[in-house]
Amino acid sequence: MRIVVDAMGSDHYPVPDVAGAVQAAREWGDEMVLVGQEELVRSELAKHEVGGLAIRVVHAPEVIEMHEHTHAVKQKKESSMRVGMRMLKCDEVDAFVSVGNTAGVLASGLFELGRIRGIRRPALGTIYPVAAQPVFLLDTGATTDCKPEYLLQFAQMAKTYVEHAWGIDNPRVGLISNGEEADKGNLMVRDAYPVLENSNINFIGNVEPKEVAKGGTDIALIDGFTGNVMLKTTEAVASFLFRFLKNELSSGVRNKIALLLLLPGLVGMLPGLLLLSPSIRRIARRLDYAEYGGALLLGLNGVVIVGHGRSNARAVKNAIGQARTAVEGGVVEAIRVGLTQPAHAV
Amino acid sequence: MRIVVDAMGSDHYPVPDVAGAVQAAREWGDEMVLVGQEELVRSELAKHEVGGLAIRVVHAPEVIEMHEHTHAVKQKKESSMRVGMRMLKCDEVDAFVSVGNTAGVLASGLFELGRIRGIRRPALGTIYPVAAQPVFLLDTGATTDCKPEYLLQFAQMAKTYVEHAWGIDNPRVGLISNGEEADKGNLMVRDAYPVLENSNINFIGNVEPKEVAKGGTDIALIDGFTGNVMLKTTEAVASFLFRFLKNELSSGVRNKIALLLLLPGLVGMLPGLLLLSPSIRRIARRLDYAEYGGALLLGLNGVVIVGHGRSNARAVKNAIGQARTAVEGGVVEAIRVGLTQPAHAV
Repeated sequence: MRIVVDAMGSDHYPVPDVAGAVQAAREWGDEMVLVGQEELVRSELAKHEVGGLAIRVVHAPEVIEMHEHTHAVKQKKESSMRVGMRMLKCDEVDAFVSVGNTAGVLASGLFELGRIRGIRRPALGTIYPVAAQPVFLLDTGATTDCKPEYLLQFAQMAKTYVEHAWGIDNPRVGLISNGEEADKGNLMVRDAYPVLENSNINFIGNVEPKEVAKGGTDIALIDGFTGNVMLKTTEAVASFLFRFLKNELSSGVRNKIALLLLLPGLVGMLPGLLLLSPSIRRIARRLDYAEYGGALLLGLNGVVIVGHGRSNARAVKNAIGQARTAVEGGVVEAIRVGLTQPAHAV
Repeated sequence: MRIVVDAMGSDHYPVPDVAGAVQAAREWGDEMVLVGQEELVRSELAKHEVGGLAIRVVHAPEVIEMHEHTHAVKQKKESSMRVGMRMLKCDEVDAFVSVGNTAGVLASGLFELGRIRGIRRPALGTIYPVAAQPVFLLDTGATTDCKPEYLLQFAQMAKTYVEHAWGIDNPRVGLISNGEEADKGNLMVRDAYPVLENSNINFIGNVEPKEVAKGGTDIALIDGFTGNVMLKTTEAVASFLFRFLKNELSSGVRNKIALLLLLPGLVGMLPGLLLLSPSIRRIARRLDYAEYGGALLLGLNGVVIVGHGRSNARAVKNAIGQARTAVEGGVVEAIRVGLTQPAHAV
């Protein structure tokens, strides 16, 4: 498999981007194409042991920075994102991965790759980070204003992805709403309900956020505005709570004395803590976005993964892993085929 | 002050509803009017020591149950909610409090009290539970489909509330969006931005959920659909994380042995833990909805507070406390006056 990795994506490009690609090449033996400012990328690559790994560098002089908009993407035809997308378009690679500006990746994808024929709007699908079992949440930000027909297509694409990449047959699809009854929701959600109910997807009705956290649905469907606010709220709450716990327990003279008094007890607890450590690690991992890698841009003419800008090397590697799974599952081809079958017609 | 309390509101009515009203009467010396099925309410009241307290019971034969909709509210003219709202309308009481069905309270309020003249839509305002300092989030569910003009009125009502009830002068108003730039958001949010910017409120622009958690705004503004999903996501994430921590640490033989091994250490830590306990209590309180009581229904012709259906007595008492603050601050009167001033005109 050949994967093009945007070397100029992350907040600290090209450091984690290059390191993640090197890790992926080593772990899976795939060919990695690093696209970006050649000199910078090569000097970063020189810091790694890459003997025997299939890693190429392709030059792209321009960079789409984190704060830049569609306008910049339009102008910067020689940016790493657009050069990488063109390689995917021409089948020089099998997937594109970036942990850069999401709007930039989306715009580059629309300019260079285009949408799958018949798909009205793209959607960004993300594994919801706080759920008892994997839930695929979409749209988390590609299409902020949706119509019921878009949501139906999102559901159909997500169904194809979850079936092919996760191996879950006929996944449950829940519509995020402010209540479980069919008459709950804003106008768009209320209109989408019957459209989903009368389609070929396994629609389980409206779901509230607590149902998503329970893993009560495999796919959680909503417009890109609400989905983005929901995902960002989840990250904000988790990070606030952990910071709050930490600060509350370590601030003030009283607490500092308390922590000193706790020390001998903690030493006595060491054997117990060591036994507990797999659980503690599992908790930390659950909340670590690096474990998840990235989000899948569904609806484009190729496998495109976007990760968090603050990704470290492991997160970049996991985003590449997600791209591999989508390529192996033949997700884009399956969506294309699905759209030509009458049962999938809108 | 006289406050009418819906005795038939909570999931376990009339138990916590009556107990909360008794606690409030004792703590603040106010007159409480319990409205509901008289026999049931009186027999519950008989379990309490109420000597010297100003508590009355007003009979209302019908009950709006948790799952019922506007249609039921329309029919049940003699429900506790509608009878209570009529007392507020006739100035027999100063505020209405229920921890029942939010849609039921809203519909009862619209039928009996009506909106303040000039207010286009009501909004439900809630203290956001996971923030470094109080943030007033609205709308959390009264008006699912909003226009920019509604949001401006919500902001003006919230400003009045925060100034009069919290004593914060010229509070900051942030618009919840999927990014900080003015061009982020769905269509409604993008249209609302210039309307808010050109108004007399202290508009600080778009805010993301992490900014709300930091307390970077005093008022967080959004439509009732997204606001409800955001609030419910917050509750779901907090409760999931705590359950997850608990389950991870206490499941499996390995962890059970580990916890036994921890015991001697914990005993040694007792003095330290005792010193820490105010912080631990603060953490627990922060996450305890009972501390917050309820949400304020802004835009109705009177002070109306709605609490969580799973409220205990303390949560009911705190909801009554919120009603007292709003009455003392003259919030409804101030909103009325504000609307007649040209600077507040839409």
